[in-house]
Amino acid sequence: MFFASDNWAGAHPSIAANLTRHAAGFASAYGSSELDRQVDRTFSEIFERDVAVFFVATGTAANSLAMTAVARPGGVAFCHREAHMIADEGGAPEYFTGGGRLCPVDGPLGRMDPAILENEIGRYPPQFVHSGQPAAVSITQSSEIGTVYSLDQIDEISTIAKKHGLPLHMDGARFANALVSLDVSPAEMTWKRGVDIVSFGGTKNGCWCAEAVVFFEPEKAAAFPFIRKRAAQLFSKSRFIAAQFEAYFDKGLWLDTARHANAMAKRLAGHVQASSKARLGWEPQANEVFPIIRLSEVERLKEAGAAFYPWHPPHGFAGGIGEDETLTRFVTSFATTEDEVDRFGDLIA
Amino acid sequence: MFFASDNWAGAHPSIAANLTRHAAGFASAYGSSELDRQVDRTFSEIFERDVAVFFVATGTAANSLAMTAVARPGGVAFCHREAHMIADEGGAPEYFTGGGRLCPVDGPLGRMDPAILENEIGRYPPQFVHSGQPAAVSITQSSEIGTVYSLDQIDEISTIAKKHGLPLHMDGARFANALVSLDVSPAEMTWKRGVDIVSFGGTKNGCWCAEAVVFFEPEKAAAFPFIRKRAAQLFSKSRFIAAQFEAYFDKGLWLDTARHANAMAKRLAGHVQASSKARLGWEPQANEVFPIIRLSEVERLKEAGAAFYPWHPPHGFAGGIGEDETLTRFVTSFATTEDEVDRFGDLIA
Amino acid sequence: MFFASDNWAGAHPSIAANLTRHAAGFASAYGSSELDRQVDRTFSEIFERDVAVFFVATGTAANSLAMTAVARPGGVAFCHREAHMIADEGGAPEYFTGGGRLCPVDGPLGRMDPAILENEIGRYPPQFVHSGQPAAVSITQSSEIGTVYSLDQIDEISTIAKKHGLPLHMDGARFANALVSLDVSPAEMTWKRGVDIVSFGGTKNGCWCAEAVVFFEPEKAAAFPFIRKRAAQLFSKSRFIAAQFEAYFDKGLWLDTARHANAMAKRLAGHVQASSKARLGWEPQANEVFPIIRLSEVERLKEAGAAFYPWHPPHGFAGGIGEDETLTRFVTSFATTEDEVDRFGDLIA
Amino acid sequence: MFFASDNWAGAHPSIAANLTRHAAGFASAYGSSELDRQVDRTFSEIFERDVAVFFVATGTAANSLAMTAVARPGGVAFCHREAHMIADEGGAPEYFTGGGRLCPVDGPLGRMDPAILENEIGRYPPQFVHSGQPAAVSITQSSEIGTVYSLDQIDEISTIAKKHGLPLHMDGARFANALVSLDVSPAEMTWKRGVDIVSFGGTKNGCWCAEAVVFFEPEKAAAFPFIRKRAAQLFSKSRFIAAQFEAYFDKGLWLDTARHANAMAKRLAGHVQASSKARLGWEPQANEVFPIIRLSEVERLKEAGAAFYPWHPPHGFAGGIGEDETLTRFVTSFATTEDEVDRFGDLIA
Repeated sequence: MFFASDNWAGAHPSIAANLTRHAAGFASAYGSSELDRQVDRTFSEIFERDVAVFFVATGTAANSLAMTAVARPGGVAFCHREAHMIADEGGAPEYFTGGGRLCPVDGPLGRMDPAILENEIGRYPPQFVHSGQPAAVSITQSSEIGTVYSLDQIDEISTIAKKHGLPLHMDGARFANALVSLDVSPAEMTWKRGVDIVSFGGTKNGCWCAEAVVFFEPEKAAAFPFIRKRAAQLFSKSRFIAAQFEAYFDKGLWLDTARHANAMAKRLAGHVQASSKARLGWEPQANEVFPIIRLSEVERLKEAGAAFYPWHPPHGFAGGIGEDETLTRFVTSFATTEDEVDRFGDLIA
Repeated sequence: MFFASDNWAGAHPSIAANLTRHAAGFASAYGSSELDRQVDRTFSEIFERDVAVFFVATGTAANSLAMTAVARPGGVAFCHREAHMIADEGGAPEYFTGGGRLCPVDGPLGRMDPAILENEIGRYPPQFVHSGQPAAVSITQSSEIGTVYSLDQIDEISTIAKKHGLPLHMDGARFANALVSLDVSPAEMTWKRGVDIVSFGGTKNGCWCAEAVVFFEPEKAAAFPFIRKRAAQLFSKSRFIAAQFEAYFDKGLWLDTARHANAMAKRLAGHVQASSKARLGWEPQANEVFPIIRLSEVERLKEAGAAFYPWHPPHGFAGGIGEDETLTRFVTSFATTEDEVDRFGDLIA
Repeated sequence: MFFASDNWAGAHPSIAANLTRHAAGFASAYGSSELDRQVDRTFSEIFERDVAVFFVATGTAANSLAMTAVARPGGVAFCHREAHMIADEGGAPEYFTGGGRLCPVDGPLGRMDPAILENEIGRYPPQFVHSGQPAAVSITQSSEIGTVYSLDQIDEISTIAKKHGLPLHMDGARFANALVSLDVSPAEMTWKRGVDIVSFGGTKNGCWCAEAVVFFEPEKAAAFPFIRKRAAQLFSKSRFIAAQFEAYFDKGLWLDTARHANAMAKRLAGHVQASSKARLGWEPQANEVFPIIRLSEVERLKEAGAAFYPWHPPHGFAGGIGEDETLTRFVTSFATTEDEVDRFGDLIA
Repeated sequence: MFFASDNWAGAHPSIAANLTRHAAGFASAYGSSELDRQVDRTFSEIFERDVAVFFVATGTAANSLAMTAVARPGGVAFCHREAHMIADEGGAPEYFTGGGRLCPVDGPLGRMDPAILENEIGRYPPQFVHSGQPAAVSITQSSEIGTVYSLDQIDEISTIAKKHGLPLHMDGARFANALVSLDVSPAEMTWKRGVDIVSFGGTKNGCWCAEAVVFFEPEKAAAFPFIRKRAAQLFSKSRFIAAQFEAYFDKGLWLDTARHANAMAKRLAGHVQASSKARLGWEPQANEVFPIIRLSEVERLKEAGAAFYPWHPPHGFAGGIGEDETLTRFVTSFATTEDEVDRFGDLIA
């Protein structure tokens, strides 16, 4: 019953197998091999347009370098208060951008409120050097708390970004989970909504280590090869990333693993709803479930082998957590089984 | 006949197999798993003292973050003019250290001349803010041109570093190749000589992606977890690095692959020495061979399937390269076969 | 009726005269002249202990370099939401610290609420690399909205900082105004309260350009000469700063100018309180007054020659600004005259 | 006999007087006052085209921010090995550019050799991420050793910069001394030769502290207000810089002071040439003289009251300094008198 995080899982067998398949033989380094190029083309097919793709080592690197690509002196990027960039990247975006600021934007259930976003951008008037200047807007899809921006909601954010001349970035550490949740195409969820850059994550969805920065206008990525190299993020044996992505995309594996993870989350949510010892903080839309559990149950669940984390109530959460309750986070993945979900269901029944 | 680089090889079968073995199951993330801890202990055993080990994504990252750990305001690190940090890291060490400078130090055959090192350090007098201040000395073992510092030579450099109160760093992207060349223990080649930090590379010697920064005084690494995280170099599924290192060290695999690579280099050098169309630039001591080849032969060799790179003559090289000759670099690896070496030998016979 | 800012004034005649006096003759550069050293000693006398003093060009530089001196990887400094560092320095503190973060702390009337400070620090648990780590606490004295921390209030903040092992910085751009408001000694307002570093401002209180970073433990400033030089803040003709400070401190000029400015603020506040067209947002404690003025009056006042700025209501301000009112800021200085204050009084009578 | 540096002088009486004149009254801050704007216009008149002018605190700041304005990821700026940016700025250019590199270019007598410049640029092939990429070329006029690039020599450097698409920067800490030495117009020495940005120094030539970054294409300076503010280089009482420049340019004062300094250097050189105890290292072209003095004389001269510095022989200097000799630097300024020059002449006669 490992629900601590989707990065506690290992690698999907197909992905591990493909790595082994490519272990032999020689291939040119630093992303120039035939396999690298083939995976580049696959990305363009998946997004239905020519994209520029750059592999990096971590989701934090993808986000930080995307921000670096659009940085401005005294620049400020706007993202949700609970965004990974603000809460979980140890200052990396600020470091890589040479001191750029991340401005927290509030909004219910992990999604920025457009009016608050507009207001925060307004605190940085054009040409007013004292405050700094807006540089980018970033949304997380799916969000840190397992919710998903609808296409309309992305449109709303995008309209504000465009109005202020700001690039729109999507932190897609759980891109696939959001995609299958909305049941739309990658193009529809991104550039057709005005998204300019995606941090495309494969690691949480079945890879060992497969993250990429995707630019929808390749000409805007002209400096990015230097940005990546300078950031020590250019792998010599780049094909070990390419091989993971090859298997990841093959026959829609990535959508299957995401659908499985989301289904396991839904199943787990069902158990929570049926329980008298726990209730749902909010409806899961991807692969994360946030039960509010009776404090008296928490230790018992852990002793029975359930791994999960306590969680801070999101900003503005009005769910009324009682003194005898606590909010928790459960994450499912490609490796989660119905059996362990149901065993947990039995535990809290 | 792939002699372009040791990073054109893939992964050793044992390492690929171990990755697959660890693909299943759950393990805590970010370096806290049992496997991560076990590999940490293995490093301490190998170096015969308690060390602090930090996995990172690339050799450039290892070097850059080692430099960051010892950075000073206006700091200058001293390394050989042809060091990877200066020539091949796209400005990463300067970037990560917040603008630290790399001062090139000359010396024959890829090794710093102690007298020149002393002289260069002397250009930054203590407390003279206008010039900046010395921050570190870095040696590359084995060097960029396939030579190896002897223990005495490391001692000489180390003595100068200590005299000026500077930490001594070793870029060990090809650590194993140097080690088996000298036939000494890891401890003898490092901390017993006064080395403080090693960039320990596994990638070029049979791993997919396995690099680590090793501190011999763990208490001096107190800030390093934050330095690594801020640099976007903390892997979530860290055990995929640990699994590579586990196999790498198991039953001395790493020494075997290095010995094989070095032996292949020696064999290739023998063919060059026997050739009338080429001659050795200098004696190889690790897994790189630098033949001076008749220009008229280069195209023929490439057409026959030999992959290798032209190379700039090292600073101060007095080997007398004629107008009808060119210097080239051949790199061998765990994956190089006697057969391809001998086929090349036949080509230049 | 120039109330726009205290930096709209020029230089006090005594300070201008002293600059002229020192214009002739030769003196060694970069802070090593006899005059520089003499002013250093004056700082130590004023603070009643040996201090290390470093002149810099701007208050933004003083704050940014103080933060740099105590920076940590992934470091976070805690200051009031309306602090100059956050609101008015164009990202300089983040830039100079290599990406350090400024965490806004709320609190009424420009002063941090100790409980909120404690809570915000608690969001960065020790050794939790994902969030980053606390690096410093900074208070502004007098605050951005003309209020002053009492000695007890400084003690409260200081106790929290010390408990977490954090250095305490004071942004003293209006140090003198706070000092004479509290009627205490510089020592009592700073190191006797646990303050470690002060950004000591002279510019707003009668100098052309005289700012300094003052360390109360000189041994902690060992790296600062390099930090300042690297930041392009080491003046060659440093004595032109020293000459200003010499006059500034001579016969207590700095206290006289601050007392005058504060008195003018009080007089102006009296006129506001007596007015039927305006009222005080809150009681001034230094040299800034924040009247809430009827919107219908604003244009008339400006046309009559009064220079002042509109102001954002401070976070959490419960003063109830009506739809027909607006908050404004009036700043007084050494150069403000009773006459212009009274003329403004007549205007709003 | 103060020949240690031109920054050991104070301020020209006319400049000090003008500061005092502007000390009274109110003026808007941060460079927006009428006086600031008027001085902006004067710069445009002097350069015979619309320029964008930004005051900064030090020459190091001017250089560092000019480099920042043209920085690229992994960027490398090319300047003479003895350039102030490399030798005397404590790492500031590297720091402000976020880790940009300065590549030393050799050349006789303080001026880059065009062939060597071309060769060094060639070491950074376009799109080769491993080495980084060229970002700028910078010349120092007059140079660090008192020589001056002729217009033809600037053209040569400029042609190379343009060929590689690189902006050309001029470090004009001693701009006026070079200008009157060549007896050309500011336009002829700069943008008519292809110079894009100038660090325009007034401090060494009679100001207290008056440095500016001048862009000849103002549209390329769009981001510079933010770059300067972020660098803590935006003065609040900016008019104190403007007032210095107003007096500096008034009735050609700046050319008079430069001509005087150069004449004093020439006079001093004459004394050296006539001496049996010293000889000229090379012919002075601006306000610096480099005598080679008999070691046995040095102490005597200092005891007699002559202030000067020993100097490293410039790279490649073939002047044959004997074991009983030493190279020295003498700098003259607006404040140097014929009398002290002649007294020194008597000393070494």
